[in-house]
Amino acid sequence: MSKINQSIGVLGGGQLGRMLVEAAAPLGLDIRVLDVDGDYPAAGVCPKFYEGSFLDFNDVVGFGQEVDILTVEIENVNIEAIKYLEGNGTFVYPQSFVLEKIIDKGVQKQFYLDHGLPTAPAQFVKGKAEIMEKYTSGELKLPFVQKIRVGGYDGRGVYIVKDEAGLSEILDGPSIIEPLVAIRRELAVIVARSVSGEVKVFPVVEMQFHPTANLVEFLFCPSKIEDERQKYVQDIARDLAIKLGIVGLLAVELFEDDQGNILINECAPRPHNSGHHSIEACITSQFEQHLRAILDLPLGDADLIMPCVMINVLGESGFSGAPLYEGIEETLKIEGVYPHLYGKKNTKPFRKMGHVTIMDHTLEEAISKAKIIQQTLKVKA
Amino acid sequence: MSKINQSIGVLGGGQLGRMLVEAAAPLGLDIRVLDVDGDYPAAGVCPKFYEGSFLDFNDVVGFGQEVDILTVEIENVNIEAIKYLEGNGTFVYPQSFVLEKIIDKGVQKQFYLDHGLPTAPAQFVKGKAEIMEKYTSGELKLPFVQKIRVGGYDGRGVYIVKDEAGLSEILDGPSIIEPLVAIRRELAVIVARSVSGEVKVFPVVEMQFHPTANLVEFLFCPSKIEDERQKYVQDIARDLAIKLGIVGLLAVELFEDDQGNILINECAPRPHNSGHHSIEACITSQFEQHLRAILDLPLGDADLIMPCVMINVLGESGFSGAPLYEGIEETLKIEGVYPHLYGKKNTKPFRKMGHVTIMDHTLEEAISKAKIIQQTLKVKA
Repeated sequence: MSKINQSIGVLGGGQLGRMLVEAAAPLGLDIRVLDVDGDYPAAGVCPKFYEGSFLDFNDVVGFGQEVDILTVEIENVNIEAIKYLEGNGTFVYPQSFVLEKIIDKGVQKQFYLDHGLPTAPAQFVKGKAEIMEKYTSGELKLPFVQKIRVGGYDGRGVYIVKDEAGLSEILDGPSIIEPLVAIRRELAVIVARSVSGEVKVFPVVEMQFHPTANLVEFLFCPSKIEDERQKYVQDIARDLAIKLGIVGLLAVELFEDDQGNILINECAPRPHNSGHHSIEACITSQFEQHLRAILDLPLGDADLIMPCVMINVLGESGFSGAPLYEGIEETLKIEGVYPHLYGKKNTKPFRKMGHVTIMDHTLEEAISKAKIIQQTLKVKA
Repeated sequence: MSKINQSIGVLGGGQLGRMLVEAAAPLGLDIRVLDVDGDYPAAGVCPKFYEGSFLDFNDVVGFGQEVDILTVEIENVNIEAIKYLEGNGTFVYPQSFVLEKIIDKGVQKQFYLDHGLPTAPAQFVKGKAEIMEKYTSGELKLPFVQKIRVGGYDGRGVYIVKDEAGLSEILDGPSIIEPLVAIRRELAVIVARSVSGEVKVFPVVEMQFHPTANLVEFLFCPSKIEDERQKYVQDIARDLAIKLGIVGLLAVELFEDDQGNILINECAPRPHNSGHHSIEACITSQFEQHLRAILDLPLGDADLIMPCVMINVLGESGFSGAPLYEGIEETLKIEGVYPHLYGKKNTKPFRKMGHVTIMDHTLEEAISKAKIIQQTLKVKA
């Protein structure tokens, strides 16, 4: 069979699944999606949407047996089903052995340490009691970061303990504890590795934090780090992808600390929020690149076409229900602005309802436009 | 209702309908398509695909009553149904009065002449017998072009009579007859006009003809005409859109004759093959622009991002059946190359199966790549 005629199944029908389906359309690919109900974002763009849970063994196996290649938009899937499919003729990318190294942040951290990849040191603890013991014995010092090993997502499952008062709110369950790094910059880089082992790395993006709230305000690309340093960060991501042996996309989040050290924070084996700008601003989008990688097609050029900023569009605080996109017309009036609305049936406070990419001839101009859009575009109900 | 929440229906599920659906996805629009069967290109990307004929009064009315705005990917639709819907609360863009001025090439030609728009002179004839009479009486001179007034498409219904031998093959039926223009260049320009009357014009594209075969080899943009002349061509298109009062896209095809005169050849009230490059190479694609226009959203910037070439991917002569895209991998290896495969279930000789846009920093580089792809990518079965 021609590579381009292979059918693809996606576990998960959120916005990442939706954008994978969108990227499959120009290439005429046969793509289908599994998620629990037809109100999910991907169902609005995918004629072959199947209802079922990516956490359920039978649902995943039944869905996976119908396709040539199975992939994911979320790493937290039924891993036993993935292994069963791998043993029975379905190609699954990312592979189960990669998912197992990433899903558990303890295993992930140990992988970095074992392979000499730069990352903050860590202590491994069973839960709250052990953290308190280590603190009392002086083995653990404030301030620190607790990361729950399994099931965290989008910042959930990560807890920063700055002082003794904070100790009362630590989470229970197997965790890793890292010293709180003084962060100069947060960076992210996406790398793709194909079935044949071809590797392409996207340009480094940088997160701009809100000056007062502890929130990512926007992402921008190119980052402000020097070219040589950018290459170093890209090489870390490339090295990690090769060492993991992943097929598909790997999104790597990193810190630059106040000493200038680059440290891997964590990675995700799939398309990622930090790569959404690539849809318009790179020669090849992260979503198309993922499809090329898992189909074993040649990877596309990942260069940036124009400086850009990406902002997430979150549900406004205080509004729940069918979304109203206030300010969308004013947003569309601004040149070089690409809103992506995920078609979610309901908004709630801080839910990711879409994103906007802004391209311009200079980064400064793109940033000014992004700031206007942040004041303009509001998701109410 | 918010403008962006209006539902859209598209009459016709070919590749133009498919690409309208693709353009609707990022904006989270509610879009559905009507065409005769689920094997049509748009069905592969549209979860709301309805089976029925855009030529059938009841099918069109039933479909149109379910949406806020009805549009077309083909002008040859049931016009009585369109008029009925317009009288009963559905917004139809392009409007029936515009369709009626365009569907019949005689009416279209008369519109140009009545409004002082530059076009070749024409004679109106009822059919073959009248053409022969006029030729015999000396009123009609060789060489000439016969254009059937209604139903021609993609070059069909146009017949060039170069000499007396050619007279035996003239078509029967109401036609217009134009003197054969000595063509220096073929140009096309797409203009969008929104419900509110905002107008934006895309850059002029130029067709490159094959040196021996009488076939468009590729389209390129920017065209090689001077800036001032480009502006003149754009102004003609703008003027025509305004005079027609169209809402939506208008694609205008023009000739530059060997004296340097610019003449309108014909126009189409919809997205057009000559605008496919805009998907990647312009700030806003023709398909998104059409959606913005009919939803009465602000129109997007239509500027070119990078020089580009567009080639059609036709079924190879001698092959019919389920398509095989020979050379697709080699094509994807070339930087800045965007294949679009329409997902047609069957290929046949010269059927449009897809297109490829090639972007590069210079037009010359894009043209070289296009020539390689033309030798590489073949649709067989």
